[in-house]
Amino acid sequence: MTTPMTRRRWLQRLGRHGGSAAVLAALNSLGLAQASPASADFKLGPAPTRGRRVLVLGAGVAGLVSALELQRAGYQVQLLEYNQRPGGRCWTLRGGDRYTELGGASQLCQFDRGQYFNPGPWRIPFNHHGVLSYCRQLGVALQPFVQINDNAYLHSRRAFGGKPQRRRELQADFSGEVDELLAKVLQQHQLDAQLSNEDQARLLETLRHQGALDREYRYRASDAVAERRGFEPFAGRGVSSKPPLDSPRPLTELLGSGLLHQLEQLPDFEYQSPLFQPVGGMDMIAQALARAVGPRIRYGARVSAISQDERGVSVAYEDLGQPGRQHTASADWCVCTLPLSVLSQTEMRISPALREAIDAAPYFSALKVGLQFKRRFWEEDEGIYGGITSTDMPNRLIAYPSHDFHGKKGVLLGAYAFGTQALEFTALPPAKRIQAALRFGAQIHPQYPAEFETGMAVGWHRSPTTLGCFAFWSQANRERHYPTLLKMDGRLILAGEHASLLPAWQEGAVLSARHAVTQLHAAASSQTAK
Amino acid sequence: MTTPMTRRRWLQRLGRHGGSAAVLAALNSLGLAQASPASADFKLGPAPTRGRRVLVLGAGVAGLVSALELQRAGYQVQLLEYNQRPGGRCWTLRGGDRYTELGGASQLCQFDRGQYFNPGPWRIPFNHHGVLSYCRQLGVALQPFVQINDNAYLHSRRAFGGKPQRRRELQADFSGEVDELLAKVLQQHQLDAQLSNEDQARLLETLRHQGALDREYRYRASDAVAERRGFEPFAGRGVSSKPPLDSPRPLTELLGSGLLHQLEQLPDFEYQSPLFQPVGGMDMIAQALARAVGPRIRYGARVSAISQDERGVSVAYEDLGQPGRQHTASADWCVCTLPLSVLSQTEMRISPALREAIDAAPYFSALKVGLQFKRRFWEEDEGIYGGITSTDMPNRLIAYPSHDFHGKKGVLLGAYAFGTQALEFTALPPAKRIQAALRFGAQIHPQYPAEFETGMAVGWHRSPTTLGCFAFWSQANRERHYPTLLKMDGRLILAGEHASLLPAWQEGAVLSARHAVTQLHAAASSQTAK
Repeated sequence: MTTPMTRRRWLQRLGRHGGSAAVLAALNSLGLAQASPASADFKLGPAPTRGRRVLVLGAGVAGLVSALELQRAGYQVQLLEYNQRPGGRCWTLRGGDRYTELGGASQLCQFDRGQYFNPGPWRIPFNHHGVLSYCRQLGVALQPFVQINDNAYLHSRRAFGGKPQRRRELQADFSGEVDELLAKVLQQHQLDAQLSNEDQARLLETLRHQGALDREYRYRASDAVAERRGFEPFAGRGVSSKPPLDSPRPLTELLGSGLLHQLEQLPDFEYQSPLFQPVGGMDMIAQALARAVGPRIRYGARVSAISQDERGVSVAYEDLGQPGRQHTASADWCVCTLPLSVLSQTEMRISPALREAIDAAPYFSALKVGLQFKRRFWEEDEGIYGGITSTDMPNRLIAYPSHDFHGKKGVLLGAYAFGTQALEFTALPPAKRIQAALRFGAQIHPQYPAEFETGMAVGWHRSPTTLGCFAFWSQANRERHYPTLLKMDGRLILAGEHASLLPAWQEGAVLSARHAVTQLHAAASSQTAK
Repeated sequence: MTTPMTRRRWLQRLGRHGGSAAVLAALNSLGLAQASPASADFKLGPAPTRGRRVLVLGAGVAGLVSALELQRAGYQVQLLEYNQRPGGRCWTLRGGDRYTELGGASQLCQFDRGQYFNPGPWRIPFNHHGVLSYCRQLGVALQPFVQINDNAYLHSRRAFGGKPQRRRELQADFSGEVDELLAKVLQQHQLDAQLSNEDQARLLETLRHQGALDREYRYRASDAVAERRGFEPFAGRGVSSKPPLDSPRPLTELLGSGLLHQLEQLPDFEYQSPLFQPVGGMDMIAQALARAVGPRIRYGARVSAISQDERGVSVAYEDLGQPGRQHTASADWCVCTLPLSVLSQTEMRISPALREAIDAAPYFSALKVGLQFKRRFWEEDEGIYGGITSTDMPNRLIAYPSHDFHGKKGVLLGAYAFGTQALEFTALPPAKRIQAALRFGAQIHPQYPAEFETGMAVGWHRSPTTLGCFAFWSQANRERHYPTLLKMDGRLILAGEHASLLPAWQEGAVLSARHAVTQLHAAASSQTAK
């Protein structure tokens, strides 16, 4: 049985907990194993009076945060960015935007005014204090992002005849039936050796409450169970009728469905309630940061070579507005936030160890498809407001907008594929990717064909500025290269989600940027002091 | 051990599932047991050409919906309302509002501009399609209401030294330890008779995933457990350190804490995710309904007597703008939405059965305290954005605003007491109620004394227009009286949350209003047809 890879599983694979004994020892030897300055009140000391020009490469979240904090400390910053917009992967597509991927396929976004789609990050956990602190400082309005919707579906082509199942029903049934099993064991005194009588009595009572069990600790159709499973108010609830007492699904059916891994009672930390999204699109964060940084961002600048010596850094770049024209920018220091996938193709004067580290990280592929529909049938017909339906089809999920409820139209995230599934999608031209997402989605929402209007499909491994979605660190690679990535290399330091323990998250970019400018500031200060 | 009454428990006590066999039989005999027209597209047929004047008493949600639907069908409606505002319990307090309760205590709300507090209903479940349909029809903007916040606290003065506990930690530990217990039982083959080998293997795998168990199915400090319990990013998370591996709390400590009843993995239907609140305050719904009803609402009208005969209805009322002046309004029919607590003190020409029903329902007491603070310390210091902290102290809970995150100031719901606890609060003058809420709250948030600015305390049993919070039906009372409440009584019919199976919810008022106007319309149509 193949089960779609859960976010949790691939985070494990990412070597996210790279802080193994080996890596910690290495970090310790570098003085890097202290707690990171993740607090909201990050602040660099004042810049030295000499040698304080810094070139920041890339105006994604890491570059913007680096530039902002350096400027605040008094550094003279220049920022080079390939795109004509700030944000990098912190990006929102709206009507009128054009996106051209590697290979030349070009899409013109035809969403209605007010509709949008975030091809990159789309949610902010409550515990990502770094990102949240910039939202607070810069006045980026936030709204709750609905992560868990108990009324959304779990779906598998191989379970329940392919019929989508309401999350609330599966959760109630699984929880109730497992609680009944354990209650039975307790009543048969099979746990007398492990638990005191008092604890057993308390546990029984808790299981009854938690599982909506009856007086005999059974999970059976009842009013209490109906309150837990929920029901269709359209079909029964009113002033004069009572909810239907549907029969729970047997445990063996639930276990055989392959759907239970999608049921997370308490998700991992980053998916716990509440999460947020900026009002109006994720790029509101990038735009606010860029406004705060001010005019020192040069857009349309493609970096071709990074050089350094004992006196400074020099970067060659092409002005995309005047193709072929080479320019040079120079400074005392450099924070380079370009993705490793790009740097591995860039001429750089750096230590062999850093070159090896840069070349060691494969990039993970991911694809998102945004679909605009004529009407919000998921709200009107199915009572689903925000949240996520998960499926074992290649589109992996359908996510409903957490904003503009009851609006005339809406944009769904119609596919969010990873790895080989993403590659298969992207092997198709954009229009066919959208058709594939529609074909999968229609198995869950039959309204799709009648209501679809227009879509956008972004495969990150085709993105010219990232050549992938995020750095996919294996544990072994991280152990070997991570300490190198975090160090000044001469007058240059890297930053970005790839140089953090939170890959793929904007918070990783923020923490990495704060770390990088702290290192740079220490180096610049000690240089001046000499 | 006294535990605070959970919402679920008191809903059970309410006889909410009043549709017992007895009551259903009675409803059946009246033709009332069909599914209620709870669908979004409720619509009355056209009003008859004669005899279509309707007097609606009370401009709360039930009265406003009754008036709106009757008008849409072509009825001529007049609405009488005691207050100088629409909405009744659908009410929002803002700076400048004055509230005078029974006994004469008067409070002037001194909240800052933009701050508010809903003394009555404050959240809308996704399954309350009636309320949601009016929000959609009338353009009332909704935003998610954070019900469960995994980072909020569970608190008991008698557990964990009185120190508030993060919900995520208790949930992770309890779930993990119970899953470990069951896994152990499975591994010892104690469930071989109940489950096939295949099911056991699948269940073990599911328990491991769900409980963050290790390879030996144990719940032990680990990276996976840290991801589930969460941690303080301030203290450890960054680019170069790993989360602390805190030890889980032992099961016996959790069971003895008295806090587990507050942990609901899947809450009951009305508290499942997502819930909503209108942007700007709950009374946005009342105001939108009142605008839709138009000029036919007379405010400041205190109904003193309701009379009827074969030809019509006549209602005596006092104009509060001209005290002592009696007026009479008359019509062909009447929808009376005044609370039963008020009707039991009102002269009415009705059947003895209806009078008995009206007098039978005690009203539940409840109290809410809104507290404005200088700064959002719950967000800044504690990372709590929206959601609810629960406690066994008399204030019962602290709820954090789900909107205006990172705003300069904020209003907390600092107490939401029921029953005798509410009565004890309300025995104090308003200023002392606020002090009590502050004293309790400071045991959870020590920032309270330094940050408090101003508050409002509303005890519903002191409200002149409701004399209680909502009709508290016992199962026995409901069985006896409910069918009577739902019937036309001559030319009059009642409506309101008290005449629904969803007491205390606005949805009960909506469904009851739709039921009432449907009955009235049938009577008016058959009258004309004669």
